[in-house]
Amino acid sequence: MKCKTCGGKAVVNMRQHNLALCKEHYLEWIPAQTARFIKKYWMFGPDEKILVAVSGGKDSLSLWDILHKLGYTADGLYIGLGIDGGFGYSKESHRLAKKFADDNGLTLHVVDMEETYSFNIPVLSEISARGHGKPCSVCGMAKRHEMNRIANQLGYDVLATGHNLDDEAAVLFGNTLTWSKDYLLRQKPVLDGHDGLARKVKPLCRFYEKEMTAYAMLRGIEYIYDECPFSVGSTSIYYKELLNQLENERPGAKLSFYLNFLDARDKGLFAGDVEKEEIPLHICPTCSQPTMYEGKCSFCRMIEKARGLNE
Amino acid sequence: MKCKTCGGKAVVNMRQHNLALCKEHYLEWIPAQTARFIKKYWMFGPDEKILVAVSGGKDSLSLWDILHKLGYTADGLYIGLGIDGGFGYSKESHRLAKKFADDNGLTLHVVDMEETYSFNIPVLSEISARGHGKPCSVCGMAKRHEMNRIANQLGYDVLATGHNLDDEAAVLFGNTLTWSKDYLLRQKPVLDGHDGLARKVKPLCRFYEKEMTAYAMLRGIEYIYDECPFSVGSTSIYYKELLNQLENERPGAKLSFYLNFLDARDKGLFAGDVEKEEIPLHICPTCSQPTMYEGKCSFCRMIEKARGLNE
Repeated sequence: MKCKTCGGKAVVNMRQHNLALCKEHYLEWIPAQTARFIKKYWMFGPDEKILVAVSGGKDSLSLWDILHKLGYTADGLYIGLGIDGGFGYSKESHRLAKKFADDNGLTLHVVDMEETYSFNIPVLSEISARGHGKPCSVCGMAKRHEMNRIANQLGYDVLATGHNLDDEAAVLFGNTLTWSKDYLLRQKPVLDGHDGLARKVKPLCRFYEKEMTAYAMLRGIEYIYDECPFSVGSTSIYYKELLNQLENERPGAKLSFYLNFLDARDKGLFAGDVEKEEIPLHICPTCSQPTMYEGKCSFCRMIEKARGLNE
Repeated sequence: MKCKTCGGKAVVNMRQHNLALCKEHYLEWIPAQTARFIKKYWMFGPDEKILVAVSGGKDSLSLWDILHKLGYTADGLYIGLGIDGGFGYSKESHRLAKKFADDNGLTLHVVDMEETYSFNIPVLSEISARGHGKPCSVCGMAKRHEMNRIANQLGYDVLATGHNLDDEAAVLFGNTLTWSKDYLLRQKPVLDGHDGLARKVKPLCRFYEKEMTAYAMLRGIEYIYDECPFSVGSTSIYYKELLNQLENERPGAKLSFYLNFLDARDKGLFAGDVEKEEIPLHICPTCSQPTMYEGKCSFCRMIEKARGLNE
């Protein structure tokens, strides 16, 4: 297999794109494609300040690397969740995020849940009714709250996450099984900011997970191989497996499922549009973050409940 | 496992409905549910004349049986496609359709493609560019043409087909992968008739395939076990397998995928509605059937081409 660009030995063969590339040209292709997606979906301009949510995994570290390479001003945010899983998951992912920042001379902001709020995610999820024994829902809420808080407090224009195509296709598959209008309208590569909610973007949303793995490995990025120990057996991992089967049978099926969706929605498949129906948000009196309902936001209510139980 | 109705020994356990039933009550439950679906989706009234498309398989023979049991006036239509597959597929399915009609004193209309049009389906598909080596597209077109022709010529009010939930969910899954607006708007348990197109209904659309197999077996209906030999390796069978995996993991997933879709569409998920945007149809000068475009319909054009090549 030869590199399509230079004819040298290819190291990556992407059946879904009918494209093989050598290391050098693959490491050029990924950032060039990312730049294309950033423009195509109007994610951000060259002078905007970007905050990258960094987990220590391959996607978020690669995203940070790519944005840096493309010349953007992008700082990192690592949120210490306090998840151990028997192998120090959070500690190791923090170490790798910090190492990447140090090696590349980049700025990493760190919020440790336990230091800041007295409780880590596993403890909070035990206290909260949201948890149901699994901390994923509590964890998602806490991360959204903290990412938005830091983006606002430190004056970033946009919040970037490392969601890849496999993530997006799995979420879309789940939303299609339930045909939830709200979720189908809201699943976008860019969610515009309003009322104190930071703009959120997913520059990697069109890359296969395996493409990001190849990028991180070829770039020599050290990342945490393990998934979060709580994600084992999750619905989204199950949907990813089903979609991988489909992809194996028909290369490109996953990408076209997602792109056909974006395209059909742009062309008016669905009635109404979330952007035209934005619900005005309220301000939480405790943290000053935007919230759906009047009164304290659900994150602050959860923290208060945890503190009350602990006294 | 006990029958939920009488406490006797259950022979069918439907995890998806959390319902086990004995033979007697299962054979009552299926028709009662069918009657419910016929009313719920406004398929037809008690005095309408129904033409059931009968293939000799479990679904269409069971449908005919159920409609008869429910007191409807329902005649059958068997279309001889001339498919052999090494085991006389069409001959055997014709024999079984005829046997069912004779045993139950029902009227079966028969159209043999070769007798009527000089060519069977495999030959037509070799001639037609539609075929691409597989006759399924030609066969679908020919069946739609003939079903509509017979329904019109013999004055039936409605055309009923035996599509079950597995069929409908697989079609929906395919339409979701491409997000085709036309297909998503058009996939309904009832397609209203207009301009010479007969109303089409699918009274079994909410029954799992295995529920129909159980019904046919418990009712002692003799049906053809083999699938059409051309369906082997088809996309729809592949989608059915994927959906069966999902169903095994989460009983009821297939049904809720389909019902959530119908419900979301009824509640206005999609922009526009096919019923409000009906395209006026033209009349084919050869067969007098409705057709999308002016001039001869695609079925008549295909037959003419075949005859021309044969002269």
